[in-house]
Amino acid sequence: MSWRWAFARHVAQAQRLLPTSSAGGGTGLLGRHHHHMPLASQIRSKEQQDPFELVADEVSLLVNRLRFMVSAEVPKLASTAEYFFKVGVEGKRFQPTVLLLMASAVKFSLSESTEGKVLSILADKLRSRQQNIAEITEMIHVASLMHDDVLDNADTRCGVRSLNLIKGNKLSVLAGDFLLSRACVALAALGNTEVASLMATTVEHLVTGETMQISTSTEQQRSMEYYLQKTYYKTSSLISNSCKAVAILAGHTAEVSVLAYEYGRNLGLAFQLIDDVLNFTGTSASLGNGSLSHIRHALDYLRKSHGVERTKELAREHTDRAVKAIESLPYSDDKDVLTSRRALVDITERVITRTK
Amino acid sequence: MSWRWAFARHVAQAQRLLPTSSAGGGTGLLGRHHHHMPLASQIRSKEQQDPFELVADEVSLLVNRLRFMVSAEVPKLASTAEYFFKVGVEGKRFQPTVLLLMASAVKFSLSESTEGKVLSILADKLRSRQQNIAEITEMIHVASLMHDDVLDNADTRCGVRSLNLIKGNKLSVLAGDFLLSRACVALAALGNTEVASLMATTVEHLVTGETMQISTSTEQQRSMEYYLQKTYYKTSSLISNSCKAVAILAGHTAEVSVLAYEYGRNLGLAFQLIDDVLNFTGTSASLGNGSLSHIRHALDYLRKSHGVERTKELAREHTDRAVKAIESLPYSDDKDVLTSRRALVDITERVITRTK
Repeated sequence: MSWRWAFARHVAQAQRLLPTSSAGGGTGLLGRHHHHMPLASQIRSKEQQDPFELVADEVSLLVNRLRFMVSAEVPKLASTAEYFFKVGVEGKRFQPTVLLLMASAVKFSLSESTEGKVLSILADKLRSRQQNIAEITEMIHVASLMHDDVLDNADTRCGVRSLNLIKGNKLSVLAGDFLLSRACVALAALGNTEVASLMATTVEHLVTGETMQISTSTEQQRSMEYYLQKTYYKTSSLISNSCKAVAILAGHTAEVSVLAYEYGRNLGLAFQLIDDVLNFTGTSASLGNGSLSHIRHALDYLRKSHGVERTKELAREHTDRAVKAIESLPYSDDKDVLTSRRALVDITERVITRTK
Repeated sequence: MSWRWAFARHVAQAQRLLPTSSAGGGTGLLGRHHHHMPLASQIRSKEQQDPFELVADEVSLLVNRLRFMVSAEVPKLASTAEYFFKVGVEGKRFQPTVLLLMASAVKFSLSESTEGKVLSILADKLRSRQQNIAEITEMIHVASLMHDDVLDNADTRCGVRSLNLIKGNKLSVLAGDFLLSRACVALAALGNTEVASLMATTVEHLVTGETMQISTSTEQQRSMEYYLQKTYYKTSSLISNSCKAVAILAGHTAEVSVLAYEYGRNLGLAFQLIDDVLNFTGTSASLGNGSLSHIRHALDYLRKSHGVERTKELAREHTDRAVKAIESLPYSDDKDVLTSRRALVDITERVITRTK
């Protein structure tokens, strides 16, 4: 559950340390995996934009809406919400960023015909519904951070004293429940049963993952299958199912929706694997970041049954699959679509190459 | 949140202590308020059945389904769920009982015509969806009990050591979250946006009520308006909105749905007012039952601004309104409908006359 925070720090650093443009040669960030990059040839722009910049304004609006909602509706929970929505502003942007980029990546291009205006209104409406998915995802994510804080009696998260030490367990549980109920109301308002069901199931997965984590036997701790299953539930289900929801709302076929899902699933798994490696090798700034039980679990897994190199390889396999999913999306020559797809690929590379 | 448990004990006692039939005279349980009983003349049966018996089998099936669901899906949470679904078996029946009776009370009668068979299949399907509402209500209710246990560090609930002392906060929060996520999935599956929104809002109300309770200033504690608002959120919103959902699923007009809502709202408020009085006068067996903050709140309210008698009067006003709502339902000569309406009225009387 802590990956967002860790990732945010990484991104801030990576933006200074790593080249963000790979156009024009094989030496850039993406160049090393040129065999995965037929997209590159489709992209006309000479400059690859920073993926987070592409949707930064939209994400800011979204987060501010969420913060305002909690503060306005339940003043007593305002400070609780502020705490989670304010700490590490960049950190909050990861999942909404991916989802808004995915929304653009699976966009149907509008022709410049006479129907253009009507279609454009519909497109705006769709975008607004996809933003809702990003909001709901963020609500579920923050709610689970709040509840994890209670569960673990964690005394630090991301270097900041955890909320439940400051405010007490009561408010953490209540604020989390409030966000979950709001997520459920927002899902109902979308009026799409399949999407509502998908997203509600992610909450169940978060619970299942956490349960697997706190109740692992020694034998289970050494089982790779168990470890990956738990990692999927805890870290990957939310982003994968919300990516899928974004595609479903756009009216895509099952095939495209599954590609969106596969991107999110593999991105999430890769992130967590790398996070566990960095925690194990002690180079991660996020050591105090995950729950203790999670870190113990990961360490045990890494130490007992698989090495660091093997885990990195596995993470690379997952980012390769994420890239493959993006490349398998239907052909488009829309500049915005191509830029967004490239940004999603760029994000996988940042996940795999981070060193802290 | 504790009323179900208290009520269960009351019912068990009331069934031994109080006459359950009021037919044939003004001396029975309902006879004292004959001015509210035009229903009585409509009911052909000489014997008024016990309201809880009327739907006991259906409620048992429902609770067993819930227990099985949790156990099968997340074995680690099985004992947690068992704990809440097993303790005080009668206790668990209150809200589902009211909802299933309401489903019958707002039933459209089927004619014995040739379309009878088709209509009967539709009626079965509707009943099954209304049972889903009862299940969802129970999931939300039990989830909030679980989370309240964490919040209050309560060491007793209903005379049994609270779950979080036995199992720890972790599992209480997780099991509650699991039930909430399942409730959300089940709501999505119903495919009715209005109903999903109604029910999701009740979770928000439970949070709001709990927040009001733990954050009451002295001035607020003496405010009757604040007290009643909090009581609505904490005790009455769930049963009132689920009653409304049952009517909406049946395809009723807004007018009928609001009557169903009004019944639930006033029943819930009356129950909590009486519960607070009994806690205050020390005759309630449920003293260790509510959260301490709730009891303190109630005591302060009763002591400072209003007397016991005034509160009892207020509770009576609410049961009167609940009865009025049932009486205002559209005319029916269907025996099952009339029996169910009578049972709902009977329940209001049991709420108001209980002495422990």
